Amino acid sequence: MIKFISPAKDMISDEKWLIYQDEYLISENLKLETDFTLSNGYAGIRGCFEEGSVLERPGTYVAGVFDTSEATVRELVNLPTWIPIKLFIDGEYLTLDEMTVIDFQRILDMKKSILFKKVIYHTKKDKKILIESYRFLSKSNLHRSFIKLFIQPLNFNGRIGVENIISGSVHNSKHNPRSKVKHFKTIENTCIDEDGIFLEVATRDDDLRVGIASNMHILGKGLHNRALLRRNMFLGESRADYSEFEAVEGEFIEINKYITFYTSRDVDKRNVSIMAKREMRNFMAEGYEEELKNHLDVYAKLWSQADIEISGDKEADKALRFNIFHLLSVANPLDDRVSIGAKGLHGEGYKGHVFWDTEVFMLPFYIYEYPEAARALLMYRYNLLNAARKNAEKNGYKGAQYPWESADTGEEETPRWGVGYLGNPVRIWTGDIEHHITADVALAIFEYYRATNDLDFMIKYGIEILLETARFWASRVEYNATLDRYEINDVIGPDEFHEHVNNNFYTNYLAKWNIKIALKLTKLLKEKHKSEYLIISSKICLLEDELNKWQEILDKIYLPYDRANYNSKLMEEFEGYFNKEDFTINKFDENNMPIWPEKVRLNKLNDTQLIKQADIVMLLLLLGEEFDDETKKLNYHYYEKRTMHKSSLSPSMYAIMGMRIGEYNNAYEHFLRSALVDLKDNQGNTSEGLHMASAGGTWQVAVLGFGGMHVDEDGILCFDPYLPDKWNFIRFKIHWRGNVLDIHILKDNVAIEVVEEKRKHEEELKIKVKGNILTL
Amino acid sequence: MIKFISPAKDMISDEKWLIYQDEYLISENLKLETDFTLSNGYAGIRGCFEEGSVLERPGTYVAGVFDTSEATVRELVNLPTWIPIKLFIDGEYLTLDEMTVIDFQRILDMKKSILFKKVIYHTKKDKKILIESYRFLSKSNLHRSFIKLFIQPLNFNGRIGVENIISGSVHNSKHNPRSKVKHFKTIENTCIDEDGIFLEVATRDDDLRVGIASNMHILGKGLHNRALLRRNMFLGESRADYSEFEAVEGEFIEINKYITFYTSRDVDKRNVSIMAKREMRNFMAEGYEEELKNHLDVYAKLWSQADIEISGDKEADKALRFNIFHLLSVANPLDDRVSIGAKGLHGEGYKGHVFWDTEVFMLPFYIYEYPEAARALLMYRYNLLNAARKNAEKNGYKGAQYPWESADTGEEETPRWGVGYLGNPVRIWTGDIEHHITADVALAIFEYYRATNDLDFMIKYGIEILLETARFWASRVEYNATLDRYEINDVIGPDEFHEHVNNNFYTNYLAKWNIKIALKLTKLLKEKHKSEYLIISSKICLLEDELNKWQEILDKIYLPYDRANYNSKLMEEFEGYFNKEDFTINKFDENNMPIWPEKVRLNKLNDTQLIKQADIVMLLLLLGEEFDDETKKLNYHYYEKRTMHKSSLSPSMYAIMGMRIGEYNNAYEHFLRSALVDLKDNQGNTSEGLHMASAGGTWQVAVLGFGGMHVDEDGILCFDPYLPDKWNFIRFKIHWRGNVLDIHILKDNVAIEVVEEKRKHEEELKIKVKGNILTL
Repeated sequence: MIKFISPAKDMISDEKWLIYQDEYLISENLKLETDFTLSNGYAGIRGCFEEGSVLERPGTYVAGVFDTSEATVRELVNLPTWIPIKLFIDGEYLTLDEMTVIDFQRILDMKKSILFKKVIYHTKKDKKILIESYRFLSKSNLHRSFIKLFIQPLNFNGRIGVENIISGSVHNSKHNPRSKVKHFKTIENTCIDEDGIFLEVATRDDDLRVGIASNMHILGKGLHNRALLRRNMFLGESRADYSEFEAVEGEFIEINKYITFYTSRDVDKRNVSIMAKREMRNFMAEGYEEELKNHLDVYAKLWSQADIEISGDKEADKALRFNIFHLLSVANPLDDRVSIGAKGLHGEGYKGHVFWDTEVFMLPFYIYEYPEAARALLMYRYNLLNAARKNAEKNGYKGAQYPWESADTGEEETPRWGVGYLGNPVRIWTGDIEHHITADVALAIFEYYRATNDLDFMIKYGIEILLETARFWASRVEYNATLDRYEINDVIGPDEFHEHVNNNFYTNYLAKWNIKIALKLTKLLKEKHKSEYLIISSKICLLEDELNKWQEILDKIYLPYDRANYNSKLMEEFEGYFNKEDFTINKFDENNMPIWPEKVRLNKLNDTQLIKQADIVMLLLLLGEEFDDETKKLNYHYYEKRTMHKSSLSPSMYAIMGMRIGEYNNAYEHFLRSALVDLKDNQGNTSEGLHMASAGGTWQVAVLGFGGMHVDEDGILCFDPYLPDKWNFIRFKIHWRGNVLDIHILKDNVAIEVVEEKRKHEEELKIKVKGNILTL
Repeated sequence: MIKFISPAKDMISDEKWLIYQDEYLISENLKLETDFTLSNGYAGIRGCFEEGSVLERPGTYVAGVFDTSEATVRELVNLPTWIPIKLFIDGEYLTLDEMTVIDFQRILDMKKSILFKKVIYHTKKDKKILIESYRFLSKSNLHRSFIKLFIQPLNFNGRIGVENIISGSVHNSKHNPRSKVKHFKTIENTCIDEDGIFLEVATRDDDLRVGIASNMHILGKGLHNRALLRRNMFLGESRADYSEFEAVEGEFIEINKYITFYTSRDVDKRNVSIMAKREMRNFMAEGYEEELKNHLDVYAKLWSQADIEISGDKEADKALRFNIFHLLSVANPLDDRVSIGAKGLHGEGYKGHVFWDTEVFMLPFYIYEYPEAARALLMYRYNLLNAARKNAEKNGYKGAQYPWESADTGEEETPRWGVGYLGNPVRIWTGDIEHHITADVALAIFEYYRATNDLDFMIKYGIEILLETARFWASRVEYNATLDRYEINDVIGPDEFHEHVNNNFYTNYLAKWNIKIALKLTKLLKEKHKSEYLIISSKICLLEDELNKWQEILDKIYLPYDRANYNSKLMEEFEGYFNKEDFTINKFDENNMPIWPEKVRLNKLNDTQLIKQADIVMLLLLLGEEFDDETKKLNYHYYEKRTMHKSSLSPSMYAIMGMRIGEYNNAYEHFLRSALVDLKDNQGNTSEGLHMASAGGTWQVAVLGFGGMHVDEDGILCFDPYLPDKWNFIRFKIHWRGNVLDIHILKDNVAIEVVEEKRKHEEELKIKVKGNILTL
């Protein structure tokens, strides 16, 4: 129930768009800061309170602004926060933690990407005051943000002081002395014009500049004696503008806080200050209403494409929307030098690094719902292709090897050491040997191309990545002369319980696929785009000999199957896996999650067949069109019993595969858990940032699982849906080869409509629904 | 009861030296930070917790380090704090406000000037841990400070992290956005050697440098695996050193935090960094035990002189000692460029400015108990004599005019505008017209000289001040030709209820006295120190004509008496005072403090005879030897009924005067209230700093009131004691003309002994006890 009474009330959307916090609980702060993060893809601001709190982790991140300093790897920099606005009522400082809060509500309006807040304070001096506020980070002009406060004295006339602050007293890993690092220094701390405040900081390693300007405008019927006091303060790492005025009981005062920001990623560093200040003047001249309107237009357009309606299940409907909201917000199709970190722009988990999560778990969403964003995400990999080449060279390979963890430079950013459960140092091997990321990127290129037919991208950028990654694999494999086969030894597959394994099926299969697609496209180019082929092959010095060698590897790469049981369709996760001690899972906790089988020694998981997350099953999903139903069923059943789901991404993948093969038992449960992972904090680490890959996985369960959408071996889009009992229908739109399709899946019917045709096609559009071909 | 169990327990002094805090109450934090401030005269550190608190006002002040920046006047700068030490138990951060505190105690040991603290935490993860600590700010080597922590895991073995911090994220007026100012910027933020940390800051106006170094040494039986992790962190305005180790249940670990500091007041600014770091190495090499020993030796010596024993009244005994403790601590005989601010080095009240408080209320303590400090305090005025000359010139006068509020430069630092009760701006006139400060300084010179016979000081410095202040008064008076008299118009006397008054008796009398003593000393010099007279008179161009003029003024300066009633002994506070509306006080609150008489309009106090504080009565005390008993009695009774005691200094002055004239009714009560002003926070503003003048006033009530000590018109030291019923005796020592006298006052007996004879005297020492002359 919406409790607001100020004019903010009329801005709030319908129920289905709203995420509520109805009570102030300090213990919820860090989690909700993540859930209530606003992002426009350019920047992300954690949902801290304007008035601050004893327990908070302010986070202001700009995509692509990384720094190392004393850290071991590059970290997404926690920049000065512009959220703080302190209020003083006749000298009393309003704080959530030390005052009586009579009424409280926060609402995240997902339709509008606006965070609303209401507080009624009862001060120690017996004054009651209502504060209602909202804020947005413009998705239209990415350099602008705005906070509005409505203030109403409920039982007094009095003097109100407002302090508008940009605070540079922040650093990364605030609560962790083991890893905390201050990544910037102050360059400029000044006022703008009379009342504005400006702070410019520079990252310590690269002198990357970030300028933040703010101005506060006070108005409203309740405002008397505006000019009592106004002062602009240098506070070392912070800057503040303080103003006092008299307020009248029962009347509203409005505080408009304008914020603009620029970085030297946008403009030359000498101009950062000028641009942020100029933008501030323009923003104030145009007014926040205009900007808000533009912001809402952008979201309206995004939602008109990406919203999914689940009829008959309000909880699932809203939870899914929450995931889509953050996926939509955090992408920036205008910046092809950044990708989406595992925790979004929502926190500092994984240091803002980009993993395979983006390509494998999130990218499908963008491909089908926001293809401009998908293209930008792939361009990030293209723009770091040279770094991937250097990375391969450094490790003694050829072609391009993508780093397991990637930041702005494209160098390998995986820390070599971490801290174990008891605080002891633990060597982290993923950056050294979890090589499948390189094939994951290649696969993503293919998936994007298959769904968009974006030939321009493929010829200019995609093919180069596919060839260079194939070349990497050709150099990565080792020839085993005794067995006359090619092997990939000493790797980590998606299942990270097993390190230093040989011939991980997932890795080997994708490596093979990568080489195969490279050869196939080479052939295609030679035939149909001869001049383009000459350009690319001469650019990367690709000779026929090399292609022949790839063909040989392709034919002889080793894929371990359960040949001992004469059953060639059961894949062996890696060579020797079936010889490990076999435990199967037969107990589940109250959330229906696996319980460790008895007698398992947790420090010897490497010696068991228990696995951390979907590995073989992941492959069967990613390249489903290459495997028959029997293979899928057999492997699903074998590995499902041995998967501990110690990654939040695992259950949703099993849910989708389950639905592919007719195993619906846990699908809904897994879907809901995945959808609620951050709203319920069921992994316990939402405070560190949003589980972006889980958000993408949630979308995948909805569309690829319940919607049953997949692409068959002939490249035809197929729907084999399954709806949980209580669902009436699920309805979504997707982009497919330049068209927008409206998919309306009912219990016993599927309606598909082309709602937008972006370009003409030579041939008619074919769709398969439950095996039947429709022509649209 | 002392609850400590670590080795710290054995260091704690006897009961009479201890001030306790037995419970942690966040609401007491700010008050106790002031009460538990440690000072060595060079620096003052407020009694914040090492672990910090949600509500705290860290204060680190170095005497003489002032800055203006955006403030309206120079402010004692709140410098980076070196108190913070954060503790982490297996990753849990120990905080007083968010954790269960099972046991708690703080003890201020006044004998040793050590602050002890004990906390037992019960963490959320069910760990119990004991922390006992102590800290001292060396009174031996003023550049050194030290904090010790004893840590004992009570129910676990585990990993402990310790973060040693110097935090520059502080500024003045922390909780007041109307006046908060950051007075410094960071110059250097580095590590020292491997583990040490160093921060150098510079004031913004004058580039005055302050360098702070710290190093943490961890040892103890409970310490295992010391080298698990150690990192030195740049944190913008702060620096930290973090260390982790394993601790064993039941065994103590010791953390030794060494701190050293230097400023460019001590050494050239290029050497501040070098000196602080060198001092750190020396300190660590010598060890804290050695420094602690030296520190205790200094305090032992100070206390052996200044302690007062009140037998039969433990509360009064300890409360008085608390006042003496802070008076002893805050003085620095080695620095004659600083004086003691109204709030000591204990907080930011009155911006660290020096008022008449120092000379009138505190100086008597120093003259009789700590004469080296008294001399330094007077040298502060001498060193600012040129500034006082400029001040006089600026205002159109001659000679030297001391500023009402003084900081480091000697310019007038009184803000011209303040904020009234309702937040409206109020013009502050004291800096313009409260001129008696100049005579107060002159009187202090005389008092010091009378008690010490320090002829060297008088000839080299004192006489110059007395002549230049006399010259000021000679230029300040206005000749009224009609009445053939000299007047001083448009002033504020000690009673600040009445502004812009003419011929304030106190001011005029002291001006007259100032001229008189100048003439007298001139005559004396001419006779006995001819060459010195020639030097000084030529230095300040003093001609006979001017001396003659002074004599004329002296004879004709107007002193208003109640002549209307033909009663020439009742002084009129200022000309026209008796014509004001007369209210007398006849109601008292629960603390026996005056209640405003009915019908008084608080915004028209100027029109009444109600006065804020002792004014005429103050004069009768300061120059008691010049007035007879009848005058004292008459004026006491008249003004006592009209004094609202709106200054904490007023009741104690009335108490002393009461005892002089045989009115003992409120003496004990006033004494105790004054002694407890900061322990009980009975003015409600102890958080802003200690009431130093009240501390001096408390000592005056004890020695000048109950001890009945005064100097008569012949310069003979007299004792006319009075003991409250429950007191058995009061015993103290005083310095008198180079000797140290032990004064032991019993109910019916006074024993006086010369315990130390510093120099030989021509004549025997005469003392009067209750009118009888004794020769020692």
